[in-house]
Amino acid sequence: MKNLNNNHETLVVALGGLGEVGKNMYCVMHEDEIVIIDAGVMFPKDELMGIDYVIPDFSFLKKNEDKIKALIITHGHEDHIGGITFLLQTVNIPFIYAPNQACGLIKRKLQDKNISYDNLKVYNEDTVVKFKHLSVEFFATTHSIPDSHGIIINTPNGKIVETGDFKFDLTPIGPMSNIHKMSDTGKSGVKLLMSESTNALSPGFSASESKVEEGLQEIFEKTKGRIIIATFASNIYRLKHIVETCRKNNRKIALFGRSMENNIEISIEGGYIKDNNIFISPEVANTMPVDEVCLLCTGSQGEPLAALSRIANRTHKQIKLRPDDTVVFSSNPIPGNNASVAKTINQLYLQGVEVFINNSENELHTSGHANEEELKLMIRLIDPEYFMPIHGEYRMLKRHQDIAIDCGIPKENTFLMQNGDVLSLSKNGIKKVKSIVADDIYVDGNRIGDIGNVVIKDRKIMANDGILVAICNINMETHKLLGRINITTRGFVLVNENEELLRQIEYVATTTVNKELSKQKVNYNDLKSEVISNVLTFVYDKTGRRPIILPVILDVKK
Amino acid sequence: MKNLNNNHETLVVALGGLGEVGKNMYCVMHEDEIVIIDAGVMFPKDELMGIDYVIPDFSFLKKNEDKIKALIITHGHEDHIGGITFLLQTVNIPFIYAPNQACGLIKRKLQDKNISYDNLKVYNEDTVVKFKHLSVEFFATTHSIPDSHGIIINTPNGKIVETGDFKFDLTPIGPMSNIHKMSDTGKSGVKLLMSESTNALSPGFSASESKVEEGLQEIFEKTKGRIIIATFASNIYRLKHIVETCRKNNRKIALFGRSMENNIEISIEGGYIKDNNIFISPEVANTMPVDEVCLLCTGSQGEPLAALSRIANRTHKQIKLRPDDTVVFSSNPIPGNNASVAKTINQLYLQGVEVFINNSENELHTSGHANEEELKLMIRLIDPEYFMPIHGEYRMLKRHQDIAIDCGIPKENTFLMQNGDVLSLSKNGIKKVKSIVADDIYVDGNRIGDIGNVVIKDRKIMANDGILVAICNINMETHKLLGRINITTRGFVLVNENEELLRQIEYVATTTVNKELSKQKVNYNDLKSEVISNVLTFVYDKTGRRPIILPVILDVKK
Repeated sequence: MKNLNNNHETLVVALGGLGEVGKNMYCVMHEDEIVIIDAGVMFPKDELMGIDYVIPDFSFLKKNEDKIKALIITHGHEDHIGGITFLLQTVNIPFIYAPNQACGLIKRKLQDKNISYDNLKVYNEDTVVKFKHLSVEFFATTHSIPDSHGIIINTPNGKIVETGDFKFDLTPIGPMSNIHKMSDTGKSGVKLLMSESTNALSPGFSASESKVEEGLQEIFEKTKGRIIIATFASNIYRLKHIVETCRKNNRKIALFGRSMENNIEISIEGGYIKDNNIFISPEVANTMPVDEVCLLCTGSQGEPLAALSRIANRTHKQIKLRPDDTVVFSSNPIPGNNASVAKTINQLYLQGVEVFINNSENELHTSGHANEEELKLMIRLIDPEYFMPIHGEYRMLKRHQDIAIDCGIPKENTFLMQNGDVLSLSKNGIKKVKSIVADDIYVDGNRIGDIGNVVIKDRKIMANDGILVAICNINMETHKLLGRINITTRGFVLVNENEELLRQIEYVATTTVNKELSKQKVNYNDLKSEVISNVLTFVYDKTGRRPIILPVILDVKK
Repeated sequence: MKNLNNNHETLVVALGGLGEVGKNMYCVMHEDEIVIIDAGVMFPKDELMGIDYVIPDFSFLKKNEDKIKALIITHGHEDHIGGITFLLQTVNIPFIYAPNQACGLIKRKLQDKNISYDNLKVYNEDTVVKFKHLSVEFFATTHSIPDSHGIIINTPNGKIVETGDFKFDLTPIGPMSNIHKMSDTGKSGVKLLMSESTNALSPGFSASESKVEEGLQEIFEKTKGRIIIATFASNIYRLKHIVETCRKNNRKIALFGRSMENNIEISIEGGYIKDNNIFISPEVANTMPVDEVCLLCTGSQGEPLAALSRIANRTHKQIKLRPDDTVVFSSNPIPGNNASVAKTINQLYLQGVEVFINNSENELHTSGHANEEELKLMIRLIDPEYFMPIHGEYRMLKRHQDIAIDCGIPKENTFLMQNGDVLSLSKNGIKKVKSIVADDIYVDGNRIGDIGNVVIKDRKIMANDGILVAICNINMETHKLLGRINITTRGFVLVNENEELLRQIEYVATTTVNKELSKQKVNYNDLKSEVISNVLTFVYDKTGRRPIILPVILDVKK
């Protein structure tokens, strides 16, 4: 990075969050100082078979480890804090600054992974964090989790504002976002606004959380049986609503799902939810009159192992559905989850219960992200010279760029970037300079990065067509095949019903091996690739499938 | 079925299409006569790893093969005709009656699979097909493919109407649906209406295809570069529009994607598309001025191998994107395809082209299925005594049932059924009688039903965590392990970077085998299950993954 960091320039480096929804991570670097904003994970798409998380590539930070001053967290959602434990395993982070609710969640993460870390600091809106060149200030925003903040980084080349996740809610459940501090920041002159783009494709102004409270209350009023609510466990304001609505309607709450229990616990600790006595155990819930009970569950996205899914498919140990139950989805399906949510709804209807989802008739959910008009409001308040849309797929970033241009920012002052791209701020303005490597790093199980594209590709083939192992004991000296070739398959065909096919495959493999062994010089790799090629051709012709053919040639010496 | 078929009752048997969108198939049976309506396939959800199609279970028909009089096809879409070739391989079907466009598509299917079948008959709205007890009549409906029909089956126990897929479009591109024949049928008295439910969850009345023509025309007027349109190849009316719009705007059309070419060819043969000269080859398209060219592609659902996806990810051999290109999605993402469509759009934006999708600003698609008000209109026109919603997931069927009740059909006269359920019609009314087996049958490659749940389960495990094969040569007589245990993996870890781990696994396996071999009696199955258990415990502890552990024990005699 030496050549990027001349002339007292300030660099903005995107390690994650561009061209994707998730693993947000941005770095601001001035000479020997780096301040990092957020360290998120991304939950992988189906095509990344078996991968549990995707995290940013930390190698830029590893190379510049001595410069890192602090990690600043905007709020406590996984796509902003989920990468912290992996980051701490890779590089030394002198301090982490996070707001109260996020601190609670981060501490729990560190405990779960047995990581001891003493420099986690709570900030609030009045905190100022000062380094030699850089200093960091904060403004309160509204999002679906308390204590969300936008970040102001003062640099020798001007102010950078990074919004974090936000919406504007003019009748919020929690405190208002600090539009006056945003306005003052704007008036004081902002060089670069980095603003979130998650809902840039949604026109208008998002609905207030207060509307959701009304929607829930309507259902509570008309329901005589149990109420089972599924929502995002991370949406603390929604949980707060539901608690309020239950209190008003004299219902006690039993919690189902580990993340639901965790988030309620942290919210009680943090003082966001005060009514501790309203919570009852599942056992108690099962003994109470049905109109005094609310079951609050994970599973609003149809996740197969979550509480609501298990209730719906009748594998939940504690909860059996009753015909007078009412199930409420206080959520929308995240794109990609529509099919699994539909599956859960179908299973619920099949058991005769009433189901309410968020739609034009019942306002049961609103997003925590800014729609188009709210994005414009942020741009107008901060009134930046330059603009860089962050947090979102490319089509969202593109739309957000167009929105900024509509708000009067010259097109050449807007930067549509990809992960790894670097902006350079100087007294003369901002320009895009060369990029660094910022690949996706896969986490599978408890290991980071030992999964590559070869492994993913093998998993895809086996997912579609299975594997066929052909084991040959041969004597390489005498050029003899010893015994029969063993054909074993998994995920290919039902073995018992296809004995004839497997015998034919053995025959093809045997013929191939014997032919190769009859040559004067037997080449191990040729032998393998001939078996693969001949068996695959035969198998594809017979079945239309292309399993992995895995020949194992063992040289057994007599 | 003997006990079901007493007393001159007429039975309605659902073999597919209930609780799912796809593989529609219903049978009407009276004494020794069976008339089948449709024989569709379903494209499987992701969780059915590697399965190409799901088809209905034909065993009820196999058992009653001698009674089958005819298969009646409502229209030429895959979820209504895609199962025909599999059906003909299983049972003898004396006659297939299909409308003109469907006949063209069926013939091509039979050719592709080398099936010779001489009894495919074309029907039109005036055709009456008579058997001893049952007779079949038709009425024209509007759908996204020409020649769609509803079916009237006259039985000794009253008229049954099965709508097929339909919408009402009062300004259609093709002919109007025959609302007068529907009305007359209703007036003559209908016992049972079986009506399609695909869009039962959509309120209001669906937009007319004419609106789409306007939306397309607007884009054509303002576009100076090439226009690339992606749409459903099976939506013949849409293709007809696009041809018309191109003609009006002096653009020639090049086709991309096999199903697009097929459907255009059949539509020209059938006379639905008349302007043969408008089509040009891709080579010619590449030499023409950009404002005289339209590229018509498959890939509107982001299917990875379809034309538009390959154009978007720059792997298409004939088409390279230009910055002045405009891409038009004349389609909506089918639920489940949102992510893949978004991926294509992101890739297109990354290459700087303009993209239009169907939304409130640009009306570029309308569904071929009836919304709520149209479903009501069908119920009112046919005015049946009993009602059975068909074609749809359970939540759609449920909503459609509620719609029918709103239209005045008594709740006890409506039947919310599942595949395999049987209705019995008699002079006294209709009741649900016992069910038959109507499972999902999987087709993978060119083989039917040799894939069971075991195979799917193995594929899922390998998709997530891979496979680990441990091969041991032992001498069962001497209780000796011969040579080293061979550990081979696929889809588990990157082998080169994990040599130490693989050595440790070999050690665990070797220790286990030696311990078992040291026993007086060596049991082959115990040996295997000990290896599985010990290796899996070790591997899970080290990696957090649970691959398939496949021990292969070869007894090598000296």
